[in-house]
Amino acid sequence: MQSGLEFKGYALVDPENFTELQVKTFKPKPFEDDDIEIVITHCGVCGSDVHTLKQGWGESKLPLVVGHEIVGKAVRVGKNVKDIKSGDRVGVGAQIWSCMQCRQCKDGYENYCPKQVDTYNAEYPDGTVSQGGYSTAIRAHQQFVFPIPDAIESKYAASMLCGGLTVFSPLRTNGAGPGKKVGIIGIGGLGHFAILFAKGLGAEVYAFTHTKDKMQDAKELGADHVIDTTQKDFAQSLQGKLDLIVTTMDATPQLPIKDFLGMLYVHGRLVNVGIPDMDKPLPTLHAFDLVPNGAYIGGSHVGSKKECLEMLKLAAEKGIKPWIQEMPMKDAKAAIEAVGNNTVRYRCVLTQDLN
Amino acid sequence: MQSGLEFKGYALVDPENFTELQVKTFKPKPFEDDDIEIVITHCGVCGSDVHTLKQGWGESKLPLVVGHEIVGKAVRVGKNVKDIKSGDRVGVGAQIWSCMQCRQCKDGYENYCPKQVDTYNAEYPDGTVSQGGYSTAIRAHQQFVFPIPDAIESKYAASMLCGGLTVFSPLRTNGAGPGKKVGIIGIGGLGHFAILFAKGLGAEVYAFTHTKDKMQDAKELGADHVIDTTQKDFAQSLQGKLDLIVTTMDATPQLPIKDFLGMLYVHGRLVNVGIPDMDKPLPTLHAFDLVPNGAYIGGSHVGSKKECLEMLKLAAEKGIKPWIQEMPMKDAKAAIEAVGNNTVRYRCVLTQDLN
Repeated sequence: MQSGLEFKGYALVDPENFTELQVKTFKPKPFEDDDIEIVITHCGVCGSDVHTLKQGWGESKLPLVVGHEIVGKAVRVGKNVKDIKSGDRVGVGAQIWSCMQCRQCKDGYENYCPKQVDTYNAEYPDGTVSQGGYSTAIRAHQQFVFPIPDAIESKYAASMLCGGLTVFSPLRTNGAGPGKKVGIIGIGGLGHFAILFAKGLGAEVYAFTHTKDKMQDAKELGADHVIDTTQKDFAQSLQGKLDLIVTTMDATPQLPIKDFLGMLYVHGRLVNVGIPDMDKPLPTLHAFDLVPNGAYIGGSHVGSKKECLEMLKLAAEKGIKPWIQEMPMKDAKAAIEAVGNNTVRYRCVLTQDLN
Repeated sequence: MQSGLEFKGYALVDPENFTELQVKTFKPKPFEDDDIEIVITHCGVCGSDVHTLKQGWGESKLPLVVGHEIVGKAVRVGKNVKDIKSGDRVGVGAQIWSCMQCRQCKDGYENYCPKQVDTYNAEYPDGTVSQGGYSTAIRAHQQFVFPIPDAIESKYAASMLCGGLTVFSPLRTNGAGPGKKVGIIGIGGLGHFAILFAKGLGAEVYAFTHTKDKMQDAKELGADHVIDTTQKDFAQSLQGKLDLIVTTMDATPQLPIKDFLGMLYVHGRLVNVGIPDMDKPLPTLHAFDLVPNGAYIGGSHVGSKKECLEMLKLAAEKGIKPWIQEMPMKDAKAAIEAVGNNTVRYRCVLTQDLN
């Protein structure tokens, strides 16, 4: 039990100045028997934070604390909680609650629960607005709290919990592993994780980038093949060759999606996890574009607890570490800008400075 | 062996008058050791024929005989041919040749061979233009010739070979069967087959139509549920409920695809087999539209020989019969118009009148 814990964080108050966060106190959700209270030590900066802060995915509930790549210490544990005890090092990702009653929840797809609550900028059934991890503390239902293996330092674990899981889930779901050829489009925060995890799972990795100075990084991350998509006919020699493509670039009309679809083998899948602002639709396709190889285009939403624990186990066993830049939480502005203008290599992680 | 067989058919000569076919003789491909020569008795009229005749899918090679739902009698059999002998009742669908060398062909995905030749309006490697089944006879590689079970009358078998197979393949590939809820969008030539085969495979069928007078037909075809898509909120009660959707309507911007995507359960698939003219793209989507349930949109290309034989076996065992309108080949104009203006219920089958 912890008494007198103050919940405060770096909050968005003025969307016109969305990088100028201000320290605000906030009221957490009421503590329930399935909840865990966590004192935050680290929080990753996710592309979602930037989209949300600049109102690209819709209007924010103000004041709003973003951040959903959270690591810290459990300091209060509800009486229904299993597997986690006070003092444990734990993490929270992009989702904080689900109904636990629906078919999706019962099937272990709690990340697809229709009533799910995002870690920030969402409303609990009681109306409490969820507040994220650029803050001192958070309360979360045990289903959304993940024990961090000893082998993974907190600064590395943090950005796995959204950025890592978002790509691990579609890789795992679609059979990335030995004997499979997997394409990764975009070498950014998500894409660099996708290379690390696709290799960790044993797949042969084809990394695609239009940024020349990332080609060497992609190799160092473990890609078996790195393809410069600014080259004419870059897609030609790969027609029908790949089993799976995970695209982590914002899926805007500029994405040369037909070139990538043509690289898939029969019934191969292109899973998109790059979500642009609402005003940018997917590239225009004709029904014919999916015919020659019976290809599929799909989406994915973060990952389940089962997948998260599997990802952390893999990372611990294989020593997988994201490439990160660490800075104190008060420097969130610099981190937000680096993520927003694509200069980060490849994730920013904020460390606690409010306690 | 058959000598003196004349290959002639009802051919497109003037795309400006695409329903006015004229009888023309043509030269078939050279007969090879894997080939079977078939005297045609029946040929179904497919939506593809209409798209091709009116140049909606690109320019035709003229003169052109369309038709790729062919049933007839084998009259000459190459020395490599197994499983079919002269005198057998056999059929040919929408594909007439593949390379037999590529990974796709070796995996039993000859319908996804990059070098495939369509039954009409395509070029064989030697430059011969393939000519379809509104004609006296056809030569085909044995891989694309299907023995017709005794239990299926030729007039019923014909339109199964493209129309039937085009929906059977995605149903079978995606696990339509007992315990699965399958949506079928559009009750036309393809959609009515999709209801028949989805039921035959044991699935629970949800049929969607915006044509009131087809609702009763959908029930008689076997649909468990028939939904009128002109009703506001028709999608509401089905959110997250369906395992698979096969959409047989032309996938134009008018298709309310987001409503349908929302009906899929986690990682459910919407497979589109309705291919409009080239000037009509898929409805505009945003990457977000595929996120809430991790849904997939895919395409499909006819089906493999393995799937075709399985379909024919199922149809024979279950007594599955398409709803057809029979007419002599000289009345192709009426059939083309009925398919083109959506008054056919539900497939036209032409019978031989040139021999």
